[in-house]
Amino acid sequence: MKHFISPKDVISIQELLKEGLAQKANPLKDRLLGKDKTLVLLFFNSSLRTRLSTQKAGINLGMNVIVMNVGSDSWQLEFGDGVKMNGDKAEHIKEAAAVIGQYADIIGVRAFAGLTDREEDYKELVLESFRSLAGVPIVNLESATRHPCQSLADLMTIEELKTKPKPKVVLTWAPHIKALPQAVGNSFAEWLNLLDYDFVITNPVGYDLSKEYTGNAKVTHNQKEAFEGADFIYAKNWSSFSDYGKVIPGNEDWIVSEEKMALTNNAKFMHCLPVRRGLIVEDAVIDSSNSVVVQQAGNRVWSVQAALKKVLEGV
Amino acid sequence: MKHFISPKDVISIQELLKEGLAQKANPLKDRLLGKDKTLVLLFFNSSLRTRLSTQKAGINLGMNVIVMNVGSDSWQLEFGDGVKMNGDKAEHIKEAAAVIGQYADIIGVRAFAGLTDREEDYKELVLESFRSLAGVPIVNLESATRHPCQSLADLMTIEELKTKPKPKVVLTWAPHIKALPQAVGNSFAEWLNLLDYDFVITNPVGYDLSKEYTGNAKVTHNQKEAFEGADFIYAKNWSSFSDYGKVIPGNEDWIVSEEKMALTNNAKFMHCLPVRRGLIVEDAVIDSSNSVVVQQAGNRVWSVQAALKKVLEGV
Amino acid sequence: MKHFISPKDVISIQELLKEGLAQKANPLKDRLLGKDKTLVLLFFNSSLRTRLSTQKAGINLGMNVIVMNVGSDSWQLEFGDGVKMNGDKAEHIKEAAAVIGQYADIIGVRAFAGLTDREEDYKELVLESFRSLAGVPIVNLESATRHPCQSLADLMTIEELKTKPKPKVVLTWAPHIKALPQAVGNSFAEWLNLLDYDFVITNPVGYDLSKEYTGNAKVTHNQKEAFEGADFIYAKNWSSFSDYGKVIPGNEDWIVSEEKMALTNNAKFMHCLPVRRGLIVEDAVIDSSNSVVVQQAGNRVWSVQAALKKVLEGV
Repeated sequence: MKHFISPKDVISIQELLKEGLAQKANPLKDRLLGKDKTLVLLFFNSSLRTRLSTQKAGINLGMNVIVMNVGSDSWQLEFGDGVKMNGDKAEHIKEAAAVIGQYADIIGVRAFAGLTDREEDYKELVLESFRSLAGVPIVNLESATRHPCQSLADLMTIEELKTKPKPKVVLTWAPHIKALPQAVGNSFAEWLNLLDYDFVITNPVGYDLSKEYTGNAKVTHNQKEAFEGADFIYAKNWSSFSDYGKVIPGNEDWIVSEEKMALTNNAKFMHCLPVRRGLIVEDAVIDSSNSVVVQQAGNRVWSVQAALKKVLEGV
Repeated sequence: MKHFISPKDVISIQELLKEGLAQKANPLKDRLLGKDKTLVLLFFNSSLRTRLSTQKAGINLGMNVIVMNVGSDSWQLEFGDGVKMNGDKAEHIKEAAAVIGQYADIIGVRAFAGLTDREEDYKELVLESFRSLAGVPIVNLESATRHPCQSLADLMTIEELKTKPKPKVVLTWAPHIKALPQAVGNSFAEWLNLLDYDFVITNPVGYDLSKEYTGNAKVTHNQKEAFEGADFIYAKNWSSFSDYGKVIPGNEDWIVSEEKMALTNNAKFMHCLPVRRGLIVEDAVIDSSNSVVVQQAGNRVWSVQAALKKVLEGV
Repeated sequence: MKHFISPKDVISIQELLKEGLAQKANPLKDRLLGKDKTLVLLFFNSSLRTRLSTQKAGINLGMNVIVMNVGSDSWQLEFGDGVKMNGDKAEHIKEAAAVIGQYADIIGVRAFAGLTDREEDYKELVLESFRSLAGVPIVNLESATRHPCQSLADLMTIEELKTKPKPKVVLTWAPHIKALPQAVGNSFAEWLNLLDYDFVITNPVGYDLSKEYTGNAKVTHNQKEAFEGADFIYAKNWSSFSDYGKVIPGNEDWIVSEEKMALTNNAKFMHCLPVRRGLIVEDAVIDSSNSVVVQQAGNRVWSVQAALKKVLEGV
């Protein structure tokens, strides 16, 4: 695998999933694979799970891991072409990416959507700049439109917990006070579509995700109908794709409640975290034994470890 | 040892002290003990000595050490029960602690007192949340009310330097411009009480520490009387416990001066650092050959290394 | 080598240059030299290349590397003698340097010029404080007046690329919107003077660097004349030394342009980065095949690795 930016980089999702579970069963089995290789992790945005799990995965593979918060540890980066750099951005991505590529064998990049310019966000300017300029493999630690390390961990969790060959998996929008990117929702849909699940997306009117990511998945604006008979409820907020980056007033009643969970087939509750209790989900749901959010987060080590392994084998 | 949060977690203070001195004599003697174990250090507050010494101790024990500044690297955490999270805190401690516990074999936590609500601070909400929720051992890197790694290093320093079986050790309040927590004072008192010293605490009226920590130690509001014949002067500022978190005007004359040091038995000068010169202590005192503040800080490696060793043996 | 603060610390520049190229040819040849040694890197200012390359170099030498952002990770430091510390600075360099020296075998320090008080900056208060107080070797990661790791990498790059024994090397001032330190310019001049190049410095009137650093180098205020026949153009902005720290209005036409590069002997374009495109240099120049800025940045690993090796051999 040359990069791990989107599922398009993955030769076999099944094989990658299997590798994730193998890493979990034996975390140090490839400890020599990354020996004397350097993994540089660049954070343009805050991170807890990704920051810690990716460091741990790199260490498990024997790599040297260096972490940098772009903008505070180093400089603000300019991405525009032909710009006269007389503002607050001290360095251009053209130099930064090429230089970091001199120090790293693999670069992990987290860079959220700006949520002001849809076209720019969906061009994935930051990740694609690193891909084209750094000269080394890039791992997506959540970009403007995708979060593949999360989605792979989510799939691992579903595979571990499913009790039937083709479970009903529901991705439900849930309320939040801030405008959030569509990355997790997009990515979950994109990856789910690659496996044979009964996959349903439910969100309020105005919150439909891009067709490019949801593909042929069933989309309904009726949350209760979607929950009926579900085996997995995956909650996530995102801002509007059509009215880009906007929060549409109302919809607070889309919270994942005990009452709605009662409609499901004793479904597991999933969320990528961090989660706002009392907005996204009721305490009673996330505190119940059906909540698997910590298992999901734990699987973040093994999903990125599997991806890094595949990339290292190609280095 | 299951955790290292307070002296109550320690089976034998004498044995732990001995281990600290043994680590100092042979820093790499347990370099295999922590192999392939991950130490995650979480800083809710600034840190120099604790940050560096704990990383070094973890490395000396063969551990992989990952450092995270909570709030800037990751998310602001909510600690309230049943809160509707519609403010600036993006993640609840219930998820954060459990998730970090998935990645760490031991978690070190620094979280200072807020100094606005005494009851809340003295409940040790942050540390106790990690203890109950993380599922792995917790090491206290200074909490709202205690700083055991510091106190153990202080005891090591006294043991190294004492010239009589039962030295007179004086903890003296000293002036500062900001309201500081009581943690170092509390903790020093709590640990000193466990050994057979002639231990005296002196502070202005209104600055008595909690009886829960000072126990049967002698407390006097007469600083000069306290200094007479002392073998060790340990200076530290703290804000009021009774008028919680307040700085009581006046008391600038409580600075540790050459004149006062002349009353002692050629006492060693101690402070946990950072120290405000000209407020807490005169330059002439801290620059004198009787000042042992650097030796104290150096011992921070060995105190936390001893504590980590004991915890690792229990993992 | 006891420290690596200025070229005066270096016994033989030729030998150090040779070592840098040897490290580049075989990055892990001294991987046992730094085993169980701790390199603490202190950043008072932002850094990308220095931060990453020095961590990598330390790791290549087998060292344990610990990074700290002074002021945000830890405390603001006071450097004044005899100051009553009642401001926002919580710790004095006297304690901080000595304490960090307890934890480190080598300390790397980045501390830019303040640009308000020339005498203070040129006394190199921060670096010299660490040198005199820490008790361990200090490596200069860019100080108020020098950037030796950069200059050594620059020399390596010139040595790799020169096509004649004595190339013409031109250091040219170039425009910027902010007041920048003179460190890179000073240091480049200081190091270049140690080798047998045809070395010319060109800058606008009012921007002459200190004679202490430029020595006998030819200085001209005629940029075009300087460019004629040059083999290497090294661009860098700095604020005024004579009108200390000031930006003199005008001089935007000092940008390194294609037109000016046409005057040279097909010169390589060099810059230490980060670089402001459209101010310092035209896109067409830095994007041309004659631009060697990435190679320069790559050499930062080997220059500091050579310096660390020499220091380690003296530890």
